Amino acid sequence: MRTTLYASEDIARIVAGVGLNRLMDETIDAIGAACRDAAAGQFHVPVRAGFEYDTPRTGLVEWMPAMHLGERIVIKVVGYHPHNPVVSAAPTILSSVLVLDPASGHLSSVLDGTFLTALRTGAASALATRHLAHPDATRLGLVGAGAQAVTQLHALSRVLPLTGVRVFDVDPATAAGFAARVAPLALDGLTIETTTLAGVVDGAHVLCTATSVDLGAGPVVSDEGLHPAVHVNAVGSDFPGKTELPLALLERALVVPDFRAQAVREGECQQLADAAIGPDLCELVNAPDAFAHHRNGPTVFDSTGFALEDYAVAVLLTRYGESLGCGQSVALESLGADPKNPYGFLDALAAAPAARRAAT
Amino acid sequence: MRTTLYASEDIARIVAGVGLNRLMDETIDAIGAACRDAAAGQFHVPVRAGFEYDTPRTGLVEWMPAMHLGERIVIKVVGYHPHNPVVSAAPTILSSVLVLDPASGHLSSVLDGTFLTALRTGAASALATRHLAHPDATRLGLVGAGAQAVTQLHALSRVLPLTGVRVFDVDPATAAGFAARVAPLALDGLTIETTTLAGVVDGAHVLCTATSVDLGAGPVVSDEGLHPAVHVNAVGSDFPGKTELPLALLERALVVPDFRAQAVREGECQQLADAAIGPDLCELVNAPDAFAHHRNGPTVFDSTGFALEDYAVAVLLTRYGESLGCGQSVALESLGADPKNPYGFLDALAAAPAARRAAT
Repeated sequence: MRTTLYASEDIARIVAGVGLNRLMDETIDAIGAACRDAAAGQFHVPVRAGFEYDTPRTGLVEWMPAMHLGERIVIKVVGYHPHNPVVSAAPTILSSVLVLDPASGHLSSVLDGTFLTALRTGAASALATRHLAHPDATRLGLVGAGAQAVTQLHALSRVLPLTGVRVFDVDPATAAGFAARVAPLALDGLTIETTTLAGVVDGAHVLCTATSVDLGAGPVVSDEGLHPAVHVNAVGSDFPGKTELPLALLERALVVPDFRAQAVREGECQQLADAAIGPDLCELVNAPDAFAHHRNGPTVFDSTGFALEDYAVAVLLTRYGESLGCGQSVALESLGADPKNPYGFLDALAAAPAARRAAT
Repeated sequence: MRTTLYASEDIARIVAGVGLNRLMDETIDAIGAACRDAAAGQFHVPVRAGFEYDTPRTGLVEWMPAMHLGERIVIKVVGYHPHNPVVSAAPTILSSVLVLDPASGHLSSVLDGTFLTALRTGAASALATRHLAHPDATRLGLVGAGAQAVTQLHALSRVLPLTGVRVFDVDPATAAGFAARVAPLALDGLTIETTTLAGVVDGAHVLCTATSVDLGAGPVVSDEGLHPAVHVNAVGSDFPGKTELPLALLERALVVPDFRAQAVREGECQQLADAAIGPDLCELVNAPDAFAHHRNGPTVFDSTGFALEDYAVAVLLTRYGESLGCGQSVALESLGADPKNPYGFLDALAAAPAARRAAT
């Protein structure tokens, strides 16, 4: 029983082998497929829990488990530390993922979850946008130009014929640096313009809000100047008290949470009564025609981050890792020849004689 | 930001460097020290949650988080799959542990939790036994002779002047193999005798129950023939509906749960009204004199498995790993030079040119 470790370099090799665009396309499809499996009752996804604290700095570490019955258990651990970029030049979101075999509890894989989280957050927005945006949508507005904005643009460019993107960030340097960050994506025929918040909202067919707005300080977007058929991916709202969108918009729009039970605690759905909340992402994906008429009016994808998405991407990445021969095989679990001897692994290894002497 | 991986071989090197007896002694002390820190309000330990299922086989995978505020977050993932020894020659309990830095959410270590769990389960019983067993206790009875029994005996041998151990298991082969499994511990002057369940109970000053009894099939020990001042470590009761001890004993005894909120759901304390439950392990360790008079009567340690114990042992093992230079440093998290570019790590690695081509 060995465990495959997919470190940063292994993930980079998988991306190199598959291609970043194809990987994004397949991530969008994999989340859609997981939604269909979930509708068949094969998934168990509890609402995530975590530690929230202000010592030594404001932070949140959460565990996000998902089980496909009889197939796999995926547990993502994810940290949200908004001071990281300034304090330690690290991303706000850091994450790692465990994949377990439910037949034995064996840890089959450990993989980086930082890239996975960025990828799937973009892909989930693209999946929702595919079903909710106006069919003629070409203009994108990004409110917040940090790490999440990169994958929002990348993912949406795969499902919409985008011609223009307008970008705003409360930090001008973050906004100014955005175009250089997405340049390697070679999004031909797309103009990227840095402007004011009102300028971003004006004329945008699709908006993505991905900010680190403080608790209770929302909304970050007002209900003025919005396109009548705007679709909004509200990505940054993922914590009790943190919201990005105005109540008036939510009340007019079809609001689709990724995971209803979580969105009512952490997402834009905190602001809504239960009856005012639309179908969840899986319901939408499983019956898109039933909601197609909403594409002519305002729609909101309330993206809090769904462990089902992490599950789908973890399976996709580890399957490619296997087929491409990436990843490092390690004997992580301490196993001896006799399953009833917890000290047996000491004998099985070269260190055993010393260990045995030390025990006497 | 790199992550240190402590695989099976690294753990074996740590044991070789420290000595198995000294490591057990320090584990017992480390759990005691964590109890003192917890009493000062510095720990956050939620009741564990998990997935329980019968497909593809009976199993349980749980996540057990613990945070020492401002210090570390430790999340153990542990599987309980009673068919493992027969089906896959693997232990019933398999586990792995993540250690995170709460300042940034960075994953500082990944380590095997299988040995850690065995070690700490023994150590917790030893800590409770030190404070609850009759001072003249020399005779130990083991009900269930599987993997947990090995560390129960080892740990108790460090805190009691044991002269004799009697062993019973529903599987005669498991009982018969026990002496060979503990032979490397070189427990001089200790007789190990395989006998009937009644024979194990008869005259034992300390009993350890560590069985895989089915839900609802308990108790495994009756209230007959027990020593008047018996101390029982009830180790196997760790699931709703699973109990090992008779209610009559629990009602007569001082019952000390490791973690009250969990024990009332999963442990022997399921059988008791709140007022019939004694101090928890931390309360006992912090005021042993207040409960010393109970050593002349029956006492029970209701050990469901406490994330605080895992935290203490994870810190102990990783500290030794660092000072002994064990462990493998890996760049697990996908980090580029710019924390606001989730694709930046693709440039930073050798695979970057291919990845960039693939993205266009």
